[in-house]
Amino acid sequence: MAVKVEKLKVNYKTLEEFKKFKEYGVQELSMLEDLQANIIENDSESPFYGIYFGDTLIARMSLYQRESRFDQYFDPPQRYLELWKLEVLPKYQGKGYGKLLVEFAKGFGLPIKTNSRIKSQGFWEKMGFEPVTYDVERDLGENPMVWYPEGVKEQKIS
Amino acid sequence: MAVKVEKLKVNYKTLEEFKKFKEYGVQELSMLEDLQANIIENDSESPFYGIYFGDTLIARMSLYQRESRFDQYFDPPQRYLELWKLEVLPKYQGKGYGKLLVEFAKGFGLPIKTNSRIKSQGFWEKMGFEPVTYDVERDLGENPMVWYPEGVKEQKIS
Repeated sequence: MAVKVEKLKVNYKTLEEFKKFKEYGVQELSMLEDLQANIIENDSESPFYGIYFGDTLIARMSLYQRESRFDQYFDPPQRYLELWKLEVLPKYQGKGYGKLLVEFAKGFGLPIKTNSRIKSQGFWEKMGFEPVTYDVERDLGENPMVWYPEGVKEQKIS
Repeated sequence: MAVKVEKLKVNYKTLEEFKKFKEYGVQELSMLEDLQANIIENDSESPFYGIYFGDTLIARMSLYQRESRFDQYFDPPQRYLELWKLEVLPKYQGKGYGKLLVEFAKGFGLPIKTNSRIKSQGFWEKMGFEPVTYDVERDLGENPMVWYPEGVKEQKIS
């Protein structure tokens, strides 16, 4: 079956699918509350992208565009993407769906930053991501891994 | 045995003790490299506080002071503490050492922000922490929990 990455809308169906993911949390609960309180409409934009296999959401990630004035990672400073909650349901792991999502994110042509778990660092390295020089003031408890499009390099911390 | 919370110095002994903790990662490796390269001196200040039981470091946390101009959580905006890597070695859990560290952090009298795992939310609530209203632009993949000293409340997001 051909699969594709699609932007996920905020609706009750999507939020129900989200419950299958381990990293279901405050973000999803907040979307649900906003929907119930009519703060956002059904089928509003969400920061999530996902892959459906038939009717089932089997993989997802969150992507958010940061403006260049907030950029503390890339040289020259520029708009970049924050990527989080990349997750493939256990039954569908090891089939390249995670890679498909990351490749999709790279397709925007912007630098990408993610906060890697220590155990996931190998995956990110295979995806072409690199660790940055740790800086306590910027990174605190994070383990940032970044992907540089051509012509972009690490921002030196002063 | 009486235990107390102490500020941890960066030295080879401390960094060796750190290896016993699950959340050993980029931050610790960076401290080790800085020590080896003489970028920092032996016994330099670290953002870590810990509890020793005899010669063994059995619990630790990281605390970092944020300046008020970076405050996106508290009203009025002010200096606050970021708390991360709170961890008690398995053998010593359930004996109040985590609580002792959190109470120590509160002792500075500043608001505190931490990024809670979903599973840890109950612990933080018992410690008097509250979730904030989730905001995707500020919080991304985080589940922030905060502690308000008297006279401090949640900053409304515009």
